[in-house]
Amino acid sequence: MKRTSRDIRTANRSLVLRHAIAASPVSRPALARATGLSQATVATLVGELLELGVLVEAGFEESGGGRPRGLVAVDAEGGALVGVDVAETYVHVEVVDLALRVLGRAHAELTPEDGDPARAARRIADAVRDATERAAAGRRVLGVGISMPGMVDREGGVSVFAANWNWHGVPLLALLAEHLPHPLHLDNPMRACVVAELWFGAARGRDDAVVVNLGTGVGAGLAFGGGPHRGASNSAGEWGHTTLVLDGRPCHCGRRGCVETYVGAPGILRTVAELDPGSALLRAGDQTAALDALAAAIERGDPTAEAALRRTAHCLGAAIGDLVNLLDPEVVVLTGWVARRLGRRLLDVVRPAVATHALPRPSAAVEILLSPIGANPVSLGAATFALEGALSPGAGAPR
Amino acid sequence: MKRTSRDIRTANRSLVLRHAIAASPVSRPALARATGLSQATVATLVGELLELGVLVEAGFEESGGGRPRGLVAVDAEGGALVGVDVAETYVHVEVVDLALRVLGRAHAELTPEDGDPARAARRIADAVRDATERAAAGRRVLGVGISMPGMVDREGGVSVFAANWNWHGVPLLALLAEHLPHPLHLDNPMRACVVAELWFGAARGRDDAVVVNLGTGVGAGLAFGGGPHRGASNSAGEWGHTTLVLDGRPCHCGRRGCVETYVGAPGILRTVAELDPGSALLRAGDQTAALDALAAAIERGDPTAEAALRRTAHCLGAAIGDLVNLLDPEVVVLTGWVARRLGRRLLDVVRPAVATHALPRPSAAVEILLSPIGANPVSLGAATFALEGALSPGAGAPR
Repeated sequence: MKRTSRDIRTANRSLVLRHAIAASPVSRPALARATGLSQATVATLVGELLELGVLVEAGFEESGGGRPRGLVAVDAEGGALVGVDVAETYVHVEVVDLALRVLGRAHAELTPEDGDPARAARRIADAVRDATERAAAGRRVLGVGISMPGMVDREGGVSVFAANWNWHGVPLLALLAEHLPHPLHLDNPMRACVVAELWFGAARGRDDAVVVNLGTGVGAGLAFGGGPHRGASNSAGEWGHTTLVLDGRPCHCGRRGCVETYVGAPGILRTVAELDPGSALLRAGDQTAALDALAAAIERGDPTAEAALRRTAHCLGAAIGDLVNLLDPEVVVLTGWVARRLGRRLLDVVRPAVATHALPRPSAAVEILLSPIGANPVSLGAATFALEGALSPGAGAPR
Repeated sequence: MKRTSRDIRTANRSLVLRHAIAASPVSRPALARATGLSQATVATLVGELLELGVLVEAGFEESGGGRPRGLVAVDAEGGALVGVDVAETYVHVEVVDLALRVLGRAHAELTPEDGDPARAARRIADAVRDATERAAAGRRVLGVGISMPGMVDREGGVSVFAANWNWHGVPLLALLAEHLPHPLHLDNPMRACVVAELWFGAARGRDDAVVVNLGTGVGAGLAFGGGPHRGASNSAGEWGHTTLVLDGRPCHCGRRGCVETYVGAPGILRTVAELDPGSALLRAGDQTAALDALAAAIERGDPTAEAALRRTAHCLGAAIGDLVNLLDPEVVVLTGWVARRLGRRLLDVVRPAVATHALPRPSAAVEILLSPIGANPVSLGAATFALEGALSPGAGAPR
């Protein structure tokens, strides 16, 4: 786990580029102030990013007297990046330019039969080709980032374990490389979400952030010192499988009382069933339809729906309060389809619940926010993996 | 929370010095390999540490032909550092040389009356003077690091909240400065423990570590990327106040079901009382005597003691398993007086309990160890605060 000087250079290039994307056009001294790096280091890094074709010279700044300062800007036209969100029931692809603005999308539903690894790779590659042929026409594709749920061996490009398809050790990148000629980068949705918030969302400019991802499963993307925390086996963030109730509800992971069994979509619906086994909300159709029905019932003041929201907030407040007490982050960002569906109403009950559970000092220091990223944050984050890959010394100049 | 270039320089100086302490005498290229920094950066940092009088030139390395390589070593004689562990019932002071070898100690019991802030500062200052006059004779004292339980404002030198003396906003460093002429540095015991393990203990050379401190209270010192994680308000690590049992045992913090209420010394004794309200273990005297009696009873196979150990391991296994799932550390180090007293017997039951609760991949990646630091790790860590303070650019050359 030793950081090499190459890792440090990649991290510093990313840091400078992230600030350049936020503030283009920008001078080198302004980048030095924003990043905390020395002016000499910033000058070197900017030179490398110009060489890579990611930044371009962009005229001069008014300096009110002295020598005019050169400006640099992100070269949005310098290439295209592809981000892929592989989920339980779909694959979603976004193509973005170097300023990470969306150029185009593709979406395909996946069926249980698509769980065959070779077939899954073909379906993913088809969606990537579909999106890039339409959106990236004439631009060089610098890389493809893929977010795959479950446990991921990032360096090896292997899906170590994916519960949805019962995959164990599937060499996903090797399978994809048979179809796609681009540099490929693999990681999991928690890492994608935290990278998306760090570069473009509610964690911009923050050092220490937690991105709470609420969906069918739940997890927490962690950032410390301004970068994603991956852990010793790239498994960090399995907050969904931390204990909220010792010996509580059984979890599909084989343990009991996991956070996920209370605040994941199936857990919330179980809470509804415990409150009112005959609730019409449980007959709304699939899980997504049931959550939509729950959100609508909360809006119209349905007592069971409101009780389920309060009970969920009690659990979520304790579980997020635990993250606040342990990690003392600057910001906790709520993301994922369940958070998007319940939105403001969830935030309004979770904030006081966290304040009740967390200690006063870290509670006063933290902001709890909904993700401001409108598009799919997982595919945006995955596109950022490809950008970070392209910035790695030795990856080869994209031009 | 923006890192400044000064912070980065301090961190890099610490990184180089930490490796130099571990491997003195050592060549500059070896330091570059060990730290991941470039050879040019290491050459600059070594120059600064020579200038500060912390390193000295130490001859040449056999190079089997080519130009002989210069070696540097820690200048143990270059000064003295003082580490102070302020606990609920005592103040413990250690004086160390620049290789952080112990030169001398002082110890004083504290009574509830010592909770008056001015009086506490006087008692602490007396103990520091007592130790330095005997141990540091002829050496310049480069700084004094103080570990104070509770919530600490590190930059301001203020004890924000200390439960033992019901302190709120006591300007401890300002009070101590009336008695002590040295540079003073304040932080909490969790930070002291993690710094001690990073520099001298079971987390040496690791990037991501968790130091679990088991005493009357419990907490977790966190390290990411090779340095201590402090959080947005220097409150990170309040693992003792994360939820193990939602709505469980009441905690002195006002919440319920906190980890501390199950695995802190009073929590363990409560478990004994739940198992056998008439147990002789509960009549052994104060809490320390009761834990000694428990350790002895475990050794002789007493059924209540063994049941209490198993129940504690079940709780501790779940709570440490949560840390493993969330943070995916390389190592979890058990420290604190309760861990020292129960020792090997605790480790033997905690390891399988963690394996049961943690997910397979992060569980396979983590080592669970007892702290190898024989002396008081809190005062050793506090002395390291003083060393890191002396390494900060602008702190003034210690010579």
